[in-house]
Amino acid sequence: MGTSVPRIDAVEKVTGRAVYGPDLKLPGMLHGKVLRSPLPHARILNVDTSKAEQLPGVKAVVTGKDLTGRYGLIIQDQPAYCLEKVRYIGDPVAGVAAVDLDTAEEALELIKVDYEELPAVFDPLKAMEPNAPLVHEELGSYFHGPVFFPVAGTNTCNHFKLRKGDVEEGFRQSDFVIENTFTTSMVQHCHLEPHISIAKFEPSGQVTIWSSTQHPYTVRREVARFLKLPINRVRVIVTCLGGGFGGKVMLKVEPLCLALAMKVKNYRPVKIILTREEEFYATSVVRHPSIIQIKAGVRKNGTLMALKTKIVFDTGAYADVGPVVTRSVGMSISGPYRIPNLWGDAYCVYTNKPIAGAFRGFGIPQFMWAMDSQMDILAKEIGMDPVEFRLKNALEEGDVSATGQILHSVGIKECIRQATQAIGWRKKTGKYHGQGMGTLYKMTQTPSSSAAFVKLSEDGSVEVLSSTVDMGQGSNTVLAQIAAEELGVEVKNVKVVSPDTSVTPFDHGTASSRSTFHMGNAVKQAAADAKKQLLEMAAEQLEVKPEDLEARGGFLYVKGSSGKGIPISSIRMGITYGKGKPIIGRGTFSVPEATPLDQETGQGAYPSVFWLYGAQAAEVEVDPSTGKVEVLKVAAAHDLGRVINPLNCEQQIEGAVVTGVGTALMEELIIREGKPVNTNFRDYRIPTALDAPEVSSVFVEATHKEGPYGAKGVGEPALAPTAAAIGNAVYDAIGVRIKDLPITPEKILKALKEKAGKKE
Amino acid sequence: MGTSVPRIDAVEKVTGRAVYGPDLKLPGMLHGKVLRSPLPHARILNVDTSKAEQLPGVKAVVTGKDLTGRYGLIIQDQPAYCLEKVRYIGDPVAGVAAVDLDTAEEALELIKVDYEELPAVFDPLKAMEPNAPLVHEELGSYFHGPVFFPVAGTNTCNHFKLRKGDVEEGFRQSDFVIENTFTTSMVQHCHLEPHISIAKFEPSGQVTIWSSTQHPYTVRREVARFLKLPINRVRVIVTCLGGGFGGKVMLKVEPLCLALAMKVKNYRPVKIILTREEEFYATSVVRHPSIIQIKAGVRKNGTLMALKTKIVFDTGAYADVGPVVTRSVGMSISGPYRIPNLWGDAYCVYTNKPIAGAFRGFGIPQFMWAMDSQMDILAKEIGMDPVEFRLKNALEEGDVSATGQILHSVGIKECIRQATQAIGWRKKTGKYHGQGMGTLYKMTQTPSSSAAFVKLSEDGSVEVLSSTVDMGQGSNTVLAQIAAEELGVEVKNVKVVSPDTSVTPFDHGTASSRSTFHMGNAVKQAAADAKKQLLEMAAEQLEVKPEDLEARGGFLYVKGSSGKGIPISSIRMGITYGKGKPIIGRGTFSVPEATPLDQETGQGAYPSVFWLYGAQAAEVEVDPSTGKVEVLKVAAAHDLGRVINPLNCEQQIEGAVVTGVGTALMEELIIREGKPVNTNFRDYRIPTALDAPEVSSVFVEATHKEGPYGAKGVGEPALAPTAAAIGNAVYDAIGVRIKDLPITPEKILKALKEKAGKKE
Repeated sequence: MGTSVPRIDAVEKVTGRAVYGPDLKLPGMLHGKVLRSPLPHARILNVDTSKAEQLPGVKAVVTGKDLTGRYGLIIQDQPAYCLEKVRYIGDPVAGVAAVDLDTAEEALELIKVDYEELPAVFDPLKAMEPNAPLVHEELGSYFHGPVFFPVAGTNTCNHFKLRKGDVEEGFRQSDFVIENTFTTSMVQHCHLEPHISIAKFEPSGQVTIWSSTQHPYTVRREVARFLKLPINRVRVIVTCLGGGFGGKVMLKVEPLCLALAMKVKNYRPVKIILTREEEFYATSVVRHPSIIQIKAGVRKNGTLMALKTKIVFDTGAYADVGPVVTRSVGMSISGPYRIPNLWGDAYCVYTNKPIAGAFRGFGIPQFMWAMDSQMDILAKEIGMDPVEFRLKNALEEGDVSATGQILHSVGIKECIRQATQAIGWRKKTGKYHGQGMGTLYKMTQTPSSSAAFVKLSEDGSVEVLSSTVDMGQGSNTVLAQIAAEELGVEVKNVKVVSPDTSVTPFDHGTASSRSTFHMGNAVKQAAADAKKQLLEMAAEQLEVKPEDLEARGGFLYVKGSSGKGIPISSIRMGITYGKGKPIIGRGTFSVPEATPLDQETGQGAYPSVFWLYGAQAAEVEVDPSTGKVEVLKVAAAHDLGRVINPLNCEQQIEGAVVTGVGTALMEELIIREGKPVNTNFRDYRIPTALDAPEVSSVFVEATHKEGPYGAKGVGEPALAPTAAAIGNAVYDAIGVRIKDLPITPEKILKALKEKAGKKE
Repeated sequence: MGTSVPRIDAVEKVTGRAVYGPDLKLPGMLHGKVLRSPLPHARILNVDTSKAEQLPGVKAVVTGKDLTGRYGLIIQDQPAYCLEKVRYIGDPVAGVAAVDLDTAEEALELIKVDYEELPAVFDPLKAMEPNAPLVHEELGSYFHGPVFFPVAGTNTCNHFKLRKGDVEEGFRQSDFVIENTFTTSMVQHCHLEPHISIAKFEPSGQVTIWSSTQHPYTVRREVARFLKLPINRVRVIVTCLGGGFGGKVMLKVEPLCLALAMKVKNYRPVKIILTREEEFYATSVVRHPSIIQIKAGVRKNGTLMALKTKIVFDTGAYADVGPVVTRSVGMSISGPYRIPNLWGDAYCVYTNKPIAGAFRGFGIPQFMWAMDSQMDILAKEIGMDPVEFRLKNALEEGDVSATGQILHSVGIKECIRQATQAIGWRKKTGKYHGQGMGTLYKMTQTPSSSAAFVKLSEDGSVEVLSSTVDMGQGSNTVLAQIAAEELGVEVKNVKVVSPDTSVTPFDHGTASSRSTFHMGNAVKQAAADAKKQLLEMAAEQLEVKPEDLEARGGFLYVKGSSGKGIPISSIRMGITYGKGKPIIGRGTFSVPEATPLDQETGQGAYPSVFWLYGAQAAEVEVDPSTGKVEVLKVAAAHDLGRVINPLNCEQQIEGAVVTGVGTALMEELIIREGKPVNTNFRDYRIPTALDAPEVSSVFVEATHKEGPYGAKGVGEPALAPTAAAIGNAVYDAIGVRIKDLPITPEKILKALKEKAGKKE
C-alpha cells in the first residue's frame, strides 16, 4: 500500500510482446468492412448488394434488414446498420465479411445505395429551435429509466434542470454579476489501438464476442437485449487494450460484427478493426462539443452569491451516453465552490454529426474550462488574487452539494494550496510568462456495482477474477496490490485474470474513475473472504485460533510470537493427498440507490459516492508575434483519497495533463456541413513529447471512509483543470482571454489585434 | 431433481457441431511428433538430431536434455523425454515441432539414436523376484506422502497390506477352504477422441496448455512443479472431450508438448495429437493387468469366515496412479461381503511394458472378477444358490469395512434382490443358456475437494463455474440441474462454463465417480450462497423478510401467498441505473482427512466418504461348438444414493456394461517381448452395437446423508460386476469355468475339451 510497485504487465508491454486485439487471429476468421453514409441526413431508398455478394471471397453482405432493432444504453436509438435513414456522415449502411480485407473493400465498392437527401442540422443551438429538422422523429419511445427528460418533438434528448436557492435574489445581493459564454471543440480520444471486435456464433447457441471494450458487462447485456438472448448465452472476452479514455465504453463495433457473424456460414468468426480515419468520425465517439453560458454574481469581498448556467452538449447523431454526461455536468454546476443560489439547464442535443460519447472526464473538462475561466474573470473584476478567491469559496468537508448531498472527503482547499506552492505562484520567470489556475470537481457513476473472486493456489499464488479492464491505466497492478495487502502475500504472486463475462464477475464498467474505489473494495472483500478461509484452515492445522494468526509476505505468523512464520504454501488447500480445502473468496461492492430525483429541481439526484477534487496551476510562455503558447509547467494537485501506487498515480496525472494541453491548445475535429475534414494525425494534431510540459504531481489524501484504504480514484481528474489553467495563464501573460477552445495561435493573434485596436 | 433432463450439450454433439480438442487450431500453431523407443529396456548412448534440425519446416527438436526432471503424481519417476534409458517400447526419446505433420514425421526419421539394450522384464511375478532387472534403479527417492510403500531394491513400488482378525483361525473354523487364481488382461480405454495437448508459452511469462484432460488442476500443479513455476503462472484450458474413462487423468501428452513449446521461437503454440496406434501403447495408459489369488473359507451354512488374497498389479514402465489403484483395491478385499478375518497383500510392480493407469473402476473391476468368480465357486461347493449365498453375507448399514470404517448408505442387498428379479433368476429360456451374478463394492477418492462459483445475471440466467470435465458422462447437465434446483430457476437457464484453471475454481479431478457427490455439493452450496444474496436483495426490494420468500421456476413467491410470483429478472442486480448488487455465490466441499493409516495392517486408511454398491445378473447363451458366448441380457442394479437424472444414469450404466462385455469376452492388448502387437481396431476388438446385450438398469437409492439430495455417483460402477456375472453365467450354461479374462471362444473350447477328457 502506498508503494510504487511497477506495472505487473510492464515487461510484456514495453517489449512489444503483449497481444492486442488487432493482433488476434482465429481459425477461419473473416474480415469485415463497413459501407458508411456519405450524406449527413438522408432517407435510404434502396441498397443493392447483389454485385458485392457475387464477388469471390465474399462470405456475407448485410444491410439494415439483416439485424433490425436498435440499441443504446440510455436511449435505444441506434441501429447496427441503418434501415430507413442515415443520420451522419459515417452512419453504417451495409457490411461485408470476406476472406481478406482487400476483397471486403472491393465488395464495398460494388454496393449501390440510393439516397434521398434530407435537410440536416449541424449547429446544436439551431437544432434546439422548434422547426429544426429532426434527427430522430420517434424520439420519445426509447427511453428507459426515470432520469432522462427529452423535450418532445425536438432534438433535445435530455434536459437536466437544477434549481437551488433563489438565483435572482442571489444576483441582487451581488456586487458584480458577469455573464460569459465559453465553447469547447469536438475532440477525439486518439487511443493508439483502434476499436476491434470479433464476433462468433458458436455451435452451442452461444455468441462469443472478443472486444476492445471498457464495458464488457454492458456489451454483454446490450447484445443480449439486442439479439433477444438470455444474458448467459453471450460471452464477451476483453482483448488487451491499447488505450480507451472512454472511447471504448458501450457498444461500438460489436453490432456491426454481429450482423455479419450471424450471416456467415460454418460459424466463422468475423473481425472488424476500424481504420484511423474511421476512428475519427465513425461508430466511435468524440468528446461532446459544448456551449456553456455562465452568469455569476459575487460580492466585493469575494463571496460567490449565485450562478446560472445554460449548457448545451452536442451529442451528434445518436444519444450514446450523452444524457448521462448532461446529468453528470448538470449536477456539478457549482464546481468545487460554495454557491448558495444555483440555476442550471443542461441540454443534450442531436445533430447530424459524429456521435459524441464518454471521454475521460465525462463532460466535466468542458464545464471546468468555462467555470474556472469565469472564476478568473470574477476575481479580476473584484481585484482579488484568483487563488485567494478560490480558497475563499472552496468547498469543505460537510458542505452541501448542488443537489443536496452532504460532502465527505473534500480536498479542494489543500489541492489549491499545494498547486499554488508547487508552481511558485506569482513568481514568474520571464516576460510573456503567465500563470493560471484551474480546478476539478467530479462525481463518479452512482449507483454502480463491482464484484470479484479471489482464488488461492496451494503454493500461495493468487488469482484475482475481475471485470475491470486494464487499458493502460494500471488497474491490474492496483488490484493486485490490494489483493496482496489483504491476503498478506507478495504482489508478484498475484495474477489478475483479464475480463471475460462468462467467468469474471459483474462490473459496471471501467470508467468514471471508479475502479480503485468500487473494484478495489470488491477485491479487498474477496481477498478478505479468502484470507478468512485460509486462517481457519491454518488454525486447524496449527492448532491455534484463527484470530491469533496473521499473514505477511506469504507467511503466517502467530500474533505476538517472535517465530519465523510458516509459508502459506504449507497450508494444505485441496491437495490430493492431504487435509485442506480449496480457498475461494468472493466480494461485491455496491452503492445504494439514492432518493428519487426531483425532475424540476434536480434535488436528490443520485448523490455521488465520492467526489474528486483537484487544482492545477500552469505556467505558460506566449509568443505575441506568433501567438504560440508554450506550456512550461503544470503543477497538478489531486485529492485521490489515498494513494495506493504513487508511480501509477503520477503516470495517470501526467498523461491526463498532456491530453489537457491538447484540448487547450490544439485539438479540434473540424466538421464542415457534417463532413469531418481532418481525420488523420497530420491534420488533427495531438501533443507530442515536445509539447508536454514539466508536470509536478502532488497527491492530496482526503481519505474516504468507504474507499479501500481511503482511496477514491484518479483516472479522469487531471485532464479537467488543465485547459482553464492554461487559458487563465495566457490571460495572465498577455492580457487576452480566449473563450473558445482550442486556444490556437490564430485566435491569440486575432485577440491581440483586437485588444491593440481597442487601445488605439 | 429426479427428472430425465436431456443433456444440455446434446444438440451440439449429436449434430457434429461440438469443437473437440483435435479440431482446435491456433494462429501460428506447429505440429509435434514424438520419436519412441523401439526397445523395451535400453540405455541411450547417443541421440543425433542434427539432420532433423536442418530439415526445412522443422522449428524445434527436443531430447531428454531439453526438459530434465521427472513428473508423476505419486512417484516422480517419468521424464518428458528419456535421457539415460528407455523403459518400454514407446518411451519418448525425442520430439519434433514442425509446420505440418508430414514434415514432423519426416524429421523423426532423420533422428538417429544409439541404444545399448538391457535385460528386460515383462512378467510381473518374475519382476518381483530378487534378481530381476530393475526398471527403476533409483526407486526410493521419489515418493511423497506417507501412504505408499515400495519394497527397496525391487520392482515393487507399492505393497499395501491389510490385516484384520485372524485369517488362519478363520480358515480353521471354515468347513470349506478354496483357493483359486484369476487373471485379467491388459485392456485399453478406446475413447474415440485421442489425447491432444497444445502448449504455448505466453509473452507474459504465463504457460497456457489446452488439454483433453480429466484433471485440469492436477495437470496445472504438476506442470508448475515440473517447470518450477508458481501455480498461477500455468493455465490449463480443457478442450471438449470425446470420452475419457480414466485414460485422461494425470499428465499425458502435456510434457511432450511443453518441451517443444519451450524451444520454438515467437511463442508459437505446439500441438500433439496421438495416433490411434500410440493410444494403444504409448504415453497413454491401459488397465493394470492383474493376477489375483484368493483363498477363502466358508461354513456349511454359507457364512464367510476368512479371506486371504495376493493381488499383483502390473503397472508397466512407470507408476502413474498404480500405487493408488493398489491401495484402493487393497482396502476393498472383502468385496461387498461381511468377512471377519482378512489378509491381503496388494502389489504394484514395474515391468518393461506399456504404462497402466486409471481406468473406470480403478482396479476394482479386476478384483470383482476374481472375487465374484470365487463366490460362485464357494456357493457351488456348499450347494447353495449363489444369490442366496451373497445375500447371506452381504454388508448392511452400520457394518464395519476391512479398514475399520463404519459403513453408511449400503444398498448391496437391495441391488442383489433387484438384479435377481430383473433377470428372472433361474428361469432360463433356452439350452446352453446360463445365468450368473457379479457385484460391485467401490470406494471413492478420499480425501478430495471441489469448489464452484455461481453467477446470476440480471435476467435470471445463471453461470456455473466448475472444473469438472464433462467428457460425455453428462456431468454438466447434472450440475446444471443442481444449480437450477437450488436457485429455483429452470435448467435451460443454466450454463456450465468449461474448465479453465485460471477461472473455474479447484477440483480434485473428474474421476472416481466423485463429481455428482463432491462437485454437486460445491455447486449446491454456491447456488445456495447466490440464492441467499438474491432473496436478501429481493426482500429489500419487496419489503418482506428474506425467509418469507421462495424461488421456483425463475419466479419468486411470498411463502403461503397465492400470488402469481414475480420473475427473478425483476430483481435488480448490479444494473447500471438501479438498485441492487451483483449476485455471486461460492461453494467448497471437502472431505476431512482420516486418522493415519497403520502401515502393517491397513487399518485406519483413509475411509471413503461413500461406497458404491451394485449387482448385475447376466444371461448368456454359449455355443459349445464354437465357444462363442452371446450375452443376452444384463440386469444391472446399482445403489447410487439418489438419482438426479434417470436418463443420464441409465446411459452411464448401459455404456459401462458394454465395456464390461468387452473386458469379459474379447479385449486384450497382446504384448510379445514388450511389443504390443494388436494396436488397431481390427486386431483389438471392442464390442459393437451387435455385441451389446439388452441392459435393464435398476436404481437402488440408499441415500447418503452427505450427498447432494442423497446422491453418490454412478460413473464407474456398472463396468465392474459384468465380467464375473458373465463368467458365472458361462459356468451355469456349460459347466466350465474360465479364470483368465477375456473368456474367448478358444479358452471355452479348450476347457470343454478338458472337461470332456476328464469325464472320459
